[in-house]
Amino acid sequence: MGWPDRRLLDRLGVEAPIIQAPMGGVATSTIVAAVARGGGLGSLPCALSAFDQVREEVQAVRRNSGAINLNFFSHAAAPPDRSREAAWRLRLAPYYAALGLGPATPTPDIDIAPFGEAHCGLIEELKPEVVSFHFGLPARPLVDRLKAAGAMVISSATTVGEASWLEAHGCDAIIAQGIEAGGHRGIFLSDDLSTQLGTMALVPQVVDAVRVPVIAAGGIADGRGIAAALMLGAAAVQLGTAYLLCPEARVPPLHRRALRERAADTVMTNVLTGRPARVIPNRVVREVGPMSDAVPAFPRAAGALAPLRAKSEAAGSDDFMPLWCGQAAHLSRELGAEELTRQLAIEALARLAGVPSRAD
Amino acid sequence: MGWPDRRLLDRLGVEAPIIQAPMGGVATSTIVAAVARGGGLGSLPCALSAFDQVREEVQAVRRNSGAINLNFFSHAAAPPDRSREAAWRLRLAPYYAALGLGPATPTPDIDIAPFGEAHCGLIEELKPEVVSFHFGLPARPLVDRLKAAGAMVISSATTVGEASWLEAHGCDAIIAQGIEAGGHRGIFLSDDLSTQLGTMALVPQVVDAVRVPVIAAGGIADGRGIAAALMLGAAAVQLGTAYLLCPEARVPPLHRRALRERAADTVMTNVLTGRPARVIPNRVVREVGPMSDAVPAFPRAAGALAPLRAKSEAAGSDDFMPLWCGQAAHLSRELGAEELTRQLAIEALARLAGVPSRAD
Repeated sequence: MGWPDRRLLDRLGVEAPIIQAPMGGVATSTIVAAVARGGGLGSLPCALSAFDQVREEVQAVRRNSGAINLNFFSHAAAPPDRSREAAWRLRLAPYYAALGLGPATPTPDIDIAPFGEAHCGLIEELKPEVVSFHFGLPARPLVDRLKAAGAMVISSATTVGEASWLEAHGCDAIIAQGIEAGGHRGIFLSDDLSTQLGTMALVPQVVDAVRVPVIAAGGIADGRGIAAALMLGAAAVQLGTAYLLCPEARVPPLHRRALRERAADTVMTNVLTGRPARVIPNRVVREVGPMSDAVPAFPRAAGALAPLRAKSEAAGSDDFMPLWCGQAAHLSRELGAEELTRQLAIEALARLAGVPSRAD
Repeated sequence: MGWPDRRLLDRLGVEAPIIQAPMGGVATSTIVAAVARGGGLGSLPCALSAFDQVREEVQAVRRNSGAINLNFFSHAAAPPDRSREAAWRLRLAPYYAALGLGPATPTPDIDIAPFGEAHCGLIEELKPEVVSFHFGLPARPLVDRLKAAGAMVISSATTVGEASWLEAHGCDAIIAQGIEAGGHRGIFLSDDLSTQLGTMALVPQVVDAVRVPVIAAGGIADGRGIAAALMLGAAAVQLGTAYLLCPEARVPPLHRRALRERAADTVMTNVLTGRPARVIPNRVVREVGPMSDAVPAFPRAAGALAPLRAKSEAAGSDDFMPLWCGQAAHLSRELGAEELTRQLAIEALARLAGVPSRAD
């Protein structure tokens, strides 16, 4: 038995229905190219990158391999709210004092432009096979231009309602992101986290609700999870945490250590950026969150945290770092991304061909 | 290809690795026997039942079929806290007034004895094939007596740590209960809900951590979910919400209507009994919860709600009912439990034999 649903494979010309998730700050052309060599689809996070950097990264991948996914954010941009940001800075003031940072310490004005005209021009120039979004979709004319440029357009749904919305607004495939997933929730039609479903419940209901291929994400980190997702009706899987221990992943040493030693319990927090995301809890998450009503809008919450992170990380502490992590980190392997992708595909195919009488 | 892991099937003499969850107030001998006729294992909730009622129900099942699971609670009993219960009654006072219930309306003193000596005697008398627990396990001498009486002893784990604990304390099989599951969380080593995993992440990690068979629960309601759970390494599945629309399920009409019309969004609440449980949100859950620090200890919270439920349910409102529901209710079918069990087995086996190129 091969892969049960070849729609994505045939369109993208990849061997295995395995997508490396676009992890901001973590995934670069190195891991994207390695995943591609292993037969999967690599994703380059572009939301935080200058256009020239995206150009260079894409060229680096193209020298190695074929298909590539460029990922952007399509959040609703929030205007600066100086009083809210000042209150946030005040909430963090005791940490500034404890780290010897004066009250006048400058903080970066962190903002991320939602995907717009200029980004669209970049896509038309670079012609990636896939453009994926987090937090919804850009306006329809932009989606149509991406498609006209030859890109498959993909985004994340965290509920059945979001999946139907994405299909109606032009998505060619939909990532069903279960509550297990590490990093930011893609939630965009609501901010009520009680609506968020586990992958096991979400995937089959999304498959029933849409006609486009569904990509399962959340809590999947080995061949068992991939085979399970395909049984649920997914055409592919997207894995993030599974790749975090790869040497190609640009994971700071303190984050890597937390992944090895403290990944059993993760939590959903909004204090690191202003939007809910799953992480390994550290000091700021425990003491200020995990969820806070005082947090500035995404991504401005990160501004006042930046000096705290810089100072404490240099001193060997992860107290203020975003320790992104999903719920299946214990299944992650310390293995090169190319080899890992190949092994995952082999394991999943073996499972699909017949489950052994006990565990692998 | 048949069922990949036959350990539970062979021990219990059942055809399909499908367990109907012991839903308190909902499952009686009627559905237990129907599931058994369909090839699965039915579970009779006994925590709220008088012993004579359990005897009658077991006899009714035995006339029809073979194996049976008797389910009990092994929570830590909390002593009455009159001031806390008075405060709770005060919190609910506006609802009493609105429903025309005087402040002197008597409320039942709801308590549930944890599984103890007397229950153990009942098991030794009735000799069920399986005894399952929620909220941990009784003391080891009791567990050993159950085993000596021929019963498999099973309990629910909501984390990998709880699974290891259950195996170390004598469990013969472990239910890995993902966050998707309807009804009460089995959580017993912590009360921190942020530790709770989705089924997709929980099952393979529990399979890796223990040697006994693992039963997957949470968000599984059709053949796709059953096949997926087996791919993850589970030996069987436990389904609750999937059976709620069966005619044999003793589900009040208002609950049944909510399952049909409002099951897309469920929430975790502790206001109905004092312990977290997944339900369809109604008035009391939304307005007093979904989580409340003021709630009396399990199960005493239900006492002051009882008159509200009785009065409002009689008037056609589900405002104060426990609308138990998991995250995959949309996959539930209005079908007899025997036929449903057979169909689920056939669908799962078909999936395992080869996933069709598109959805079923």
